[in-house]
Amino acid sequence: MKLTILGCYAATPRSLNNPTSQVLEIKNHLFLIDCGEGTQVQLRKQKLKFSRINHIFISHLHGDHFFGLPGLISTFRLLGRKTELHVYGPKGIKEAITLLLKLGDSWTNYPLYFHELSSLESEIVFEGNKVTVSTIPLQHRIYTNGFLFKEKIGERKLNVEAVAKYRVNKCYFQNIKKGKDVILENGQRIDNRLLSHDPLPSKSYAFCSDTQYSEEIIPLINEVGVLYHEATFLESEKALAPKTKHSTAMEAAIIAKKANVGKLILGHFSTRYGSTCPFKEEAAAIFPNVELAEDGRIFDL
Amino acid sequence: MKLTILGCYAATPRSLNNPTSQVLEIKNHLFLIDCGEGTQVQLRKQKLKFSRINHIFISHLHGDHFFGLPGLISTFRLLGRKTELHVYGPKGIKEAITLLLKLGDSWTNYPLYFHELSSLESEIVFEGNKVTVSTIPLQHRIYTNGFLFKEKIGERKLNVEAVAKYRVNKCYFQNIKKGKDVILENGQRIDNRLLSHDPLPSKSYAFCSDTQYSEEIIPLINEVGVLYHEATFLESEKALAPKTKHSTAMEAAIIAKKANVGKLILGHFSTRYGSTCPFKEEAAAIFPNVELAEDGRIFDL
Repeated sequence: MKLTILGCYAATPRSLNNPTSQVLEIKNHLFLIDCGEGTQVQLRKQKLKFSRINHIFISHLHGDHFFGLPGLISTFRLLGRKTELHVYGPKGIKEAITLLLKLGDSWTNYPLYFHELSSLESEIVFEGNKVTVSTIPLQHRIYTNGFLFKEKIGERKLNVEAVAKYRVNKCYFQNIKKGKDVILENGQRIDNRLLSHDPLPSKSYAFCSDTQYSEEIIPLINEVGVLYHEATFLESEKALAPKTKHSTAMEAAIIAKKANVGKLILGHFSTRYGSTCPFKEEAAAIFPNVELAEDGRIFDL
Repeated sequence: MKLTILGCYAATPRSLNNPTSQVLEIKNHLFLIDCGEGTQVQLRKQKLKFSRINHIFISHLHGDHFFGLPGLISTFRLLGRKTELHVYGPKGIKEAITLLLKLGDSWTNYPLYFHELSSLESEIVFEGNKVTVSTIPLQHRIYTNGFLFKEKIGERKLNVEAVAKYRVNKCYFQNIKKGKDVILENGQRIDNRLLSHDPLPSKSYAFCSDTQYSEEIIPLINEVGVLYHEATFLESEKALAPKTKHSTAMEAAIIAKKANVGKLILGHFSTRYGSTCPFKEEAAAIFPNVELAEDGRIFDL
């Protein structure tokens, strides 16, 4: 699982601060999460292949998470895309993109599907062979979802020595991987746990931006491997957080601790701060395994 | 008159190629012309004050001329803008921007006026004390206008020596500047041309992008000081020009020559070309006073 931060700043694009966008590589999928203005250029800088992006998840329709999408969709057309593109985002996203394409008389020549979201409860929005994506309803000024990306639990691993020892016939191997016991020719039942190892733990990533402090998300992100949580402010600007429905670094850390996640990544920093180091210090006091997002930074998870 | 090229490439933004946008400084106005994705960042790089932009002219609603506008309008709000912003562009631009602001629940807190264009004839769209802006209807795949920016002809300059020689009373000076003759106390009429010099010639700038080769624009841009004309292709890709309704460098030069303009600036280059030098060579053979646009280049005109 690999996370590439294309942009992790709040509000408006600047020379050195890109608005929110990131790419999650998981089980051979390249998921684009949010698409602020300038995302196309950031994708090029990271040498990420446009053609590998088939699913785009948009948290909410504020410009710093969404205004790069019309351009990206147009660029796919210019690049001669033929394969399906699926866009998941709040109700209204289809009308907006469709209107812009109509005004430019620039319809896509590839199949473009919108999956509009309006539920206030978590729901599965994508299910592949090896990955599911579900929404994490967030508390922001407008309808907003985070997204939980989760590998499905794989098959059990064959215990090669054990199957040799019990002389288990090859034709049982698939059943063993599925967790079934084996009954030998002599009638003896061998417990599956003797013949197989547990599968690798499934990896998971939760993207939560933008949101105010909300413990309601904890059951949804409980024990997730990696949590990206917005931290627009430091505690010194704490009063601004509920007003703008954003979080502080400390609040993000409290959520990470209460949800017992593996690692916390902070992002969506206000550009008012000269350095992002204080975000890490503030959060680490509560949740030590914390990292800072940075435009262009790659996390191998 | 100063022209800053923020972006001069066709199609999609890339790391080093920005889509169309430019700023014309004329008689204390800062006019923004077109607004491709990334224009805000280019404005910052050029250290152009956002608050000085009060009028934005959009040629047409293809993404590479327009997809930076929603973000810029939102940024003006975040910067606490209070003054009016006027946007001139094709019919539909108001619906598009309004929908995006509505979806983000991010209405501007400053007065935003749309001046929607639909005429197929040239019309004056802005008239200030010292400058007029009129449309130049262009031939492209969708409804498109170029824009002609023209200083109004100033007052005549007082011939200080002549007024002293004829002992003309100060109270006549304003009339002399307006071109009127003077009748002295002895009844003698002094011709205005003896008492004043011609005003400085008025400067003018014509922006023509995107368009196929069209001689219909020549009467509108005749003897303009500076013509920016698109040159998406070289003659080697000549067949693509009418198909996509764009021009070649040679075609732009022919227009410049036939319209007897002062200087030609080429732009809107296709990113298929490694270097833009051949554009200059191709055009210079027909119209020698030609320059190439370049992202970040400033022309003092």
